[in-house]
Amino acid sequence: MQPPFPPQPYPTVRLMPKAEARAIRHGFPWVYANELVLDRRTKGLPAGALAVLEDAERRPMAVVTVNTASRIAARVLDGDPEARIDGGWLRARLARARDHRERLYDAPFYRLVHAEADGLPGLVIDRFGDAAVVQPNAAWTETALPEIAEALAEVCGVTTVVKNASGRSRTLEGLDEETVVIRGPAPDGPVRVEMNGAVYFADLLGGQKTGLFYDQRPNHAFAASLARDARVLDVFSHVGGFGLAALAGGARDVTAVDSSAAALGLATKGAEAMGRAADFDTRQGDAFDTLAALAPEGPAFGLVVCDPPAFAPSKSALEAGLRAYERIARLAAPLVEEGGYLVLCSCSHAADLAKFRGACARGIGKAGRRGQIVWTGFAGPDHPVLPHLAESGYLKALAFRL
Amino acid sequence: MQPPFPPQPYPTVRLMPKAEARAIRHGFPWVYANELVLDRRTKGLPAGALAVLEDAERRPMAVVTVNTASRIAARVLDGDPEARIDGGWLRARLARARDHRERLYDAPFYRLVHAEADGLPGLVIDRFGDAAVVQPNAAWTETALPEIAEALAEVCGVTTVVKNASGRSRTLEGLDEETVVIRGPAPDGPVRVEMNGAVYFADLLGGQKTGLFYDQRPNHAFAASLARDARVLDVFSHVGGFGLAALAGGARDVTAVDSSAAALGLATKGAEAMGRAADFDTRQGDAFDTLAALAPEGPAFGLVVCDPPAFAPSKSALEAGLRAYERIARLAAPLVEEGGYLVLCSCSHAADLAKFRGACARGIGKAGRRGQIVWTGFAGPDHPVLPHLAESGYLKALAFRL
Repeated sequence: MQPPFPPQPYPTVRLMPKAEARAIRHGFPWVYANELVLDRRTKGLPAGALAVLEDAERRPMAVVTVNTASRIAARVLDGDPEARIDGGWLRARLARARDHRERLYDAPFYRLVHAEADGLPGLVIDRFGDAAVVQPNAAWTETALPEIAEALAEVCGVTTVVKNASGRSRTLEGLDEETVVIRGPAPDGPVRVEMNGAVYFADLLGGQKTGLFYDQRPNHAFAASLARDARVLDVFSHVGGFGLAALAGGARDVTAVDSSAAALGLATKGAEAMGRAADFDTRQGDAFDTLAALAPEGPAFGLVVCDPPAFAPSKSALEAGLRAYERIARLAAPLVEEGGYLVLCSCSHAADLAKFRGACARGIGKAGRRGQIVWTGFAGPDHPVLPHLAESGYLKALAFRL
Repeated sequence: MQPPFPPQPYPTVRLMPKAEARAIRHGFPWVYANELVLDRRTKGLPAGALAVLEDAERRPMAVVTVNTASRIAARVLDGDPEARIDGGWLRARLARARDHRERLYDAPFYRLVHAEADGLPGLVIDRFGDAAVVQPNAAWTETALPEIAEALAEVCGVTTVVKNASGRSRTLEGLDEETVVIRGPAPDGPVRVEMNGAVYFADLLGGQKTGLFYDQRPNHAFAASLARDARVLDVFSHVGGFGLAALAGGARDVTAVDSSAAALGLATKGAEAMGRAADFDTRQGDAFDTLAALAPEGPAFGLVVCDPPAFAPSKSALEAGLRAYERIARLAAPLVEEGGYLVLCSCSHAADLAKFRGACARGIGKAGRRGQIVWTGFAGPDHPVLPHLAESGYLKALAFRL
């Protein structure tokens, strides 16, 4: 196995004559497999190798990391082709990412690194106080994991680093799926996280994603601002994301629905920590079934939130996904009282905002209701996006008043 | 002159055989002139008249208000074709709009009615405590102005009602442009408004729009969250919208740029009321010229905000407008320190989010800088939108970290 940060000079790889070099010069971070000259030498580079990318005229453009087994054959690490990629480079990128989050938040609980937009392609790191959960979603990040853990300790002072390898993108890069503590002591049970005045518990080792959905923070906050004195239904609740925020926002009571008993257990623990266990009810089961089962109760809720998993994770799943979003809206809308609110979320890359909004509006219409949109939200500011990739911003949250 | 709310039965108007009746049945609020049968009887209806809209098969669809002089020949007032439009109907719509805002805000300072999305087509009302500023942008609202003022007093308890007739859409409807107090005493000088911890002063009689831009409230709040200890440049500052919010967010100092001495005077009054006059500087002049004049100072600001008037108010102005947005970004980016923030806004209907984002990214790139997008914001929740008109959401705010 090669060292993660070999010394310069790096081998070179070259763009095909017809490849779009301009976009890369303007900050587009990827080279697709059909844009790269895949000669025997390039194919022989180990996954995650560092290289200097040249244009078709052999002018150096950037330092990249190569993975010829991936559809994204090269990812730009540094727009300076003479940049030296090492521990110092990594620490500088982490410090820059940390400075932004420290400006935004009072407490060290946030997405610390959001991959390409933080100049660390394929690397996702969520911070939970003294612990960090790393999703190494590109080959180079897997190779460099020990250096990443070391740099995290130096730059952020974290004592525990968890590798979480459940991401879908890992499969595309040909990586394994294990979640394991790679540095420091294992967390002593679920980690307590305060956001928007609510208390959450995140299981860093066994949970979905990295244990908590930081991306929804501004949408949680907005939904909470609608919740005062309301009865709230939180569907696909996970560890209580919207529901506990609504409690903190003054909701009368919350019913949380999820298929995972473990997630609902953590949500209940959060309600207990907030001293609101008596106002927090859970229903374990399928969301569609539960929504249908609630139908006889009529418009019983002032606020209904549905934050499902990605129904349209890829282009091929788009049509079926949009029908699922429409169905969710159609089942949920009748449960909202007149003048109440329905918050619908999508974390599907393939369903853009206009398509998702259309599916929601159709579902609401088929339920015989009308809605105004009062909020269009995206992932929070600890989830930056590159302008070139902004169209694919995955998370959308729409709040309708019915 | 006809009474604003004549008794039923209303005259009927009819859709052309090929008109898209389905969209209207699903909540689209407008009938364009080329979709309406414009026989002599319909043409003879006074601007703002109430009528029952029928489809081509003479089935009643809705109660509409007609203005055959406008490109939008009919606007849906009520999807129930038997609805009676009168003071009670108006009060019910106002109360519904008020309930939403009272849920959102602690104090009665907000956009109370946002036209079509609040079921009151062409009617815009901003509330400033005991005063309300009405923009009657469709013929029916002009005719019904006394009843609107009366209903406002009853539903919201306001004592002063101002008619502000500076809206561009009034010209399209063939209406005059006067601003005048139509009920109660004239405001005793600028009205004090607290938002996001800042203090603003709004001139209800002489200011731009209705005196204050409530629509930017969430974007002000987000920009303020970036401002701690920063030097801030607020370009197109008006009465200090972003700049005073940044002061409240802990900015070290703020330089506000605007072409209007009157607006800057109100901004300074706000800084004084916050006890921060020493940290608030103003520069009266053209924004482009001022940005160019600041260039020699280099990247002196931690946060630069540019919130210009609509550069692309119509489709024909789109290309020139996008070039102006690009130029603003190109002039502003060099003034932002490394790791600092640039907030760019557009209130152009014609420039959609993707086009505006592209223009900003090009401008930043031409300045030799790179940016990540950390925030995409729209008008606040007191500015709801109908799903059918959501694409035309006019206000966009992008925050870049450079």
